[in-house]
Amino acid sequence: MSSDQSDEIFQGKSLKELFPEERPGWKGFIEWEDAPERKQIAHELLKTKKFTPIPEFQQDPLPRTNPILIGHRWKEYHEALGLKEIVDFSWEMVQKEKEDMLHVLDFPYNGETRFNRIMEDKITKNKHHFIRNHGGVPDIDPDAFYLELGGMVNKPVKLSLKELMDPTKFPQKEVTVTLQCSGTRRIEQIGLYPGDGDELINAPWGEGAIGTAVYRGVPLKKVLKIACGGVLPECQHVEFIGADTYFKKLEVFNYAVSVPWRKVRQNEEVLLAWEMNGEPLPKIHGGPLRVVVTGYIGARSVKWVYKINALPVPSYGPVQRAEYLYYNQQIGKHNTLVSNGFSIGQMPVSSAIMTPRDKDVIIHDGSIHLEGWSYSGGGNWVERVEVSPDGGHVWYACEPKNMTQKHYHAWRLWKIDLPVDAEGWLEFVVRTWDSSNNTEPTFIRSAWNWDLHVTSSCHRIRLYSVNKKKPLTHRRLSKLDAMGESFFPISRPLEFELETRTEIDQAWETDPREPKD
Amino acid sequence: MSSDQSDEIFQGKSLKELFPEERPGWKGFIEWEDAPERKQIAHELLKTKKFTPIPEFQQDPLPRTNPILIGHRWKEYHEALGLKEIVDFSWEMVQKEKEDMLHVLDFPYNGETRFNRIMEDKITKNKHHFIRNHGGVPDIDPDAFYLELGGMVNKPVKLSLKELMDPTKFPQKEVTVTLQCSGTRRIEQIGLYPGDGDELINAPWGEGAIGTAVYRGVPLKKVLKIACGGVLPECQHVEFIGADTYFKKLEVFNYAVSVPWRKVRQNEEVLLAWEMNGEPLPKIHGGPLRVVVTGYIGARSVKWVYKINALPVPSYGPVQRAEYLYYNQQIGKHNTLVSNGFSIGQMPVSSAIMTPRDKDVIIHDGSIHLEGWSYSGGGNWVERVEVSPDGGHVWYACEPKNMTQKHYHAWRLWKIDLPVDAEGWLEFVVRTWDSSNNTEPTFIRSAWNWDLHVTSSCHRIRLYSVNKKKPLTHRRLSKLDAMGESFFPISRPLEFELETRTEIDQAWETDPREPKD
Repeated sequence: MSSDQSDEIFQGKSLKELFPEERPGWKGFIEWEDAPERKQIAHELLKTKKFTPIPEFQQDPLPRTNPILIGHRWKEYHEALGLKEIVDFSWEMVQKEKEDMLHVLDFPYNGETRFNRIMEDKITKNKHHFIRNHGGVPDIDPDAFYLELGGMVNKPVKLSLKELMDPTKFPQKEVTVTLQCSGTRRIEQIGLYPGDGDELINAPWGEGAIGTAVYRGVPLKKVLKIACGGVLPECQHVEFIGADTYFKKLEVFNYAVSVPWRKVRQNEEVLLAWEMNGEPLPKIHGGPLRVVVTGYIGARSVKWVYKINALPVPSYGPVQRAEYLYYNQQIGKHNTLVSNGFSIGQMPVSSAIMTPRDKDVIIHDGSIHLEGWSYSGGGNWVERVEVSPDGGHVWYACEPKNMTQKHYHAWRLWKIDLPVDAEGWLEFVVRTWDSSNNTEPTFIRSAWNWDLHVTSSCHRIRLYSVNKKKPLTHRRLSKLDAMGESFFPISRPLEFELETRTEIDQAWETDPREPKD
Repeated sequence: MSSDQSDEIFQGKSLKELFPEERPGWKGFIEWEDAPERKQIAHELLKTKKFTPIPEFQQDPLPRTNPILIGHRWKEYHEALGLKEIVDFSWEMVQKEKEDMLHVLDFPYNGETRFNRIMEDKITKNKHHFIRNHGGVPDIDPDAFYLELGGMVNKPVKLSLKELMDPTKFPQKEVTVTLQCSGTRRIEQIGLYPGDGDELINAPWGEGAIGTAVYRGVPLKKVLKIACGGVLPECQHVEFIGADTYFKKLEVFNYAVSVPWRKVRQNEEVLLAWEMNGEPLPKIHGGPLRVVVTGYIGARSVKWVYKINALPVPSYGPVQRAEYLYYNQQIGKHNTLVSNGFSIGQMPVSSAIMTPRDKDVIIHDGSIHLEGWSYSGGGNWVERVEVSPDGGHVWYACEPKNMTQKHYHAWRLWKIDLPVDAEGWLEFVVRTWDSSNNTEPTFIRSAWNWDLHVTSSCHRIRLYSVNKKKPLTHRRLSKLDAMGESFFPISRPLEFELETRTEIDQAWETDPREPKD
């Protein structure tokens, strides 16, 4: 399809007339949820177009490009509605704010933190923090921005960003929060058994779809109380609507999800945030205003939130009701129904070894150094991290001094020196215990989900151990050194003979292949 | 390097003079073992050349080409000695005799039987039988062929093929024999952990480097007795030398290995064969004459055998003493010595599921049909085959009527209908018990070898089970059928909605996400 729809006429009107940017200073924002007729027209228009089919990457190795995957179809959806500028602006933001990332999908932007960046500090730098967007990045002028609060509240209100940020009106909070995509480590599930392709491309996340930041904002609980006079007794859920445009089966939405009112009223657990690590919230992270829901799947921390509704039931948004589902292991394409997966909310305890990397060769003196992250959601914190150098038989605990401090809502980074005598291919495993004594399923197979969300099984890596303390190994390495030959890659044979014919023949004599009698 | 060495002069002589085909009617045969000076010149010559480096495929997915791998280096070795005709003739033979194979390596030719061919009959057709050659195919006129028997025998002799085939001189035997490369199923070891790259490319064999044929020939025991008057009491090993040229670290050999005299004198267990499945032994399989060593690694069944030596010790050939080794799991590049791997002789019990294939989707009525092979070497035969539909918890035995007949030295093919209720991704496993009650290691990891030879662990495949007897599955399949939509690939989502918004919302009402109190 053409990439320029600017002259297109549909039902007698131009696309700009049909799908207008109504609010001054709100570029890239189209109101869908309050405009059912507009939604309907968009659906009719999309039905007339052909789109690039859903790409299938689960049966094949991923390309080694960056971006890894190209979001043709979602770009085309936007272009079909005359919203190409959103696509272009989003990529501009990536280049400006997210240069040094693993671009898992270019649009909607899904960027993974590079593994070496994760371990730099317990706080992930803004430019390195992972991103999982569901649509394009709107370009909203903070001075023009306002938030609507409505639904089952005593008094619906509109608040400008300035009002919200006024500390004399609302008490502010700084909270250290780990956010993660429920797709973190999905690549391990796909590697074993392919699963649901999803409506949006199921990004092939590794261990870097997680990050921690200090967010500054106001607890939503306080805003609802102070500005709206509280919620009505019937309120059970609080819905967040984002300014991005979301597509599902050729229908159009603003991104909308909800969390239980019980969650909102708990301490500082749901925040309206405008600051990330001391800087204004970057546009690509939801600036000027986003929700931060502690302990939950990242998908609830709505970016560019412009409307909040107190509801008697969970949001009717498709992301809330029909996505991010956890299925029984036997559910698949033959019998999936949205309604037999449960909706993922609070995140379970999980962890990952970030360094060394799977299949690394480690030359050491009897001890191998490992580092990684451990996290638990739902208000649980990380109590203990255990690492095994032998596939899960012996477990060593990380010492508290080798772990970052406890937070109610953030990960702990850890490091450990593991005694390793054995050489060759070994399997290293990590597991974490949280403050409710939860720990992780043992194998990927132990907790496999057709929808490929939540990979919380023990993370396993293979390392090739080379223990220099072993005389034979020491001799071999010295010999290689003397000959100026590389040990790498280990599967490439050495050009020279490792022992003489005489030595080999002698071995056959001292230890013959067959018995004497 | 140039592919035409015909004009090359080395040490004042042409290559044809240096490395002559001395025997009339023996094209492509160079005598090396009896010509140490010639060997030395070849070594000197090879040292002056540059060869394509050893290819590394173990870290990456294999190309989907056929041939899969190209044997640049071994072609160049031959060409460097002016033996390009051997390379060309070998490929001619592949095209003539082995058209419908998976060409794992084009030269030296390594061809794997296609999985569907394996199960056609307990006897593998000649044109489908796997091949693992170590050098080029010599082109020897059967009328010019003769075999030398010497070493520690009472009377060294030369026998023409005609004499050997004379039933009045030597009693003939037909034996049904399974031969396998010890690299069978190596790809499973590589997939988990890469291992030794080997001097010759370690062919990435699957489950098809095994086959069964009826060989006609004379037991070597009888030939040694009748023609040579028996072996001397000091004889411990019997060496076989083949007419192919073998390279190792820029040295040149005729292919030479040996087996224990105890093996040769046992029943009909070592055969000199000129017929395969009722046809003259194909050139590519060693025609006009090869050794068939029952129950052993294929590498001992020397093709184009032209010399047999009774020895007091195992052959000094590098294949016998420095290749086909089985290492302890912790041995690797850091500490391998030829002399700490034991030489692989008799093959252990092993098996493979040939159909369905790994990651197949099976639509069924509560039962899944599997077929495969089971084999044990060393004179053991297959007693029982067991298959598990749940990763190795419950095991069903194949009924004897669903297995091919027992042979002392051949596999049994088997089939089974397994009751399968569960749907989604399941892991099917096979294990075999032999006549000495040996069975297979449980996981690849349980028996991993740096040299990547002998993968005898339980073969596992993943199947996606779709049980039509389940009402929801039945409904889904009917719906797809009615809409003319394909179920495949399973990871590609369906374009239409699987349930209405009303149904989804109803499910949220009847089974709410959060407790009431």
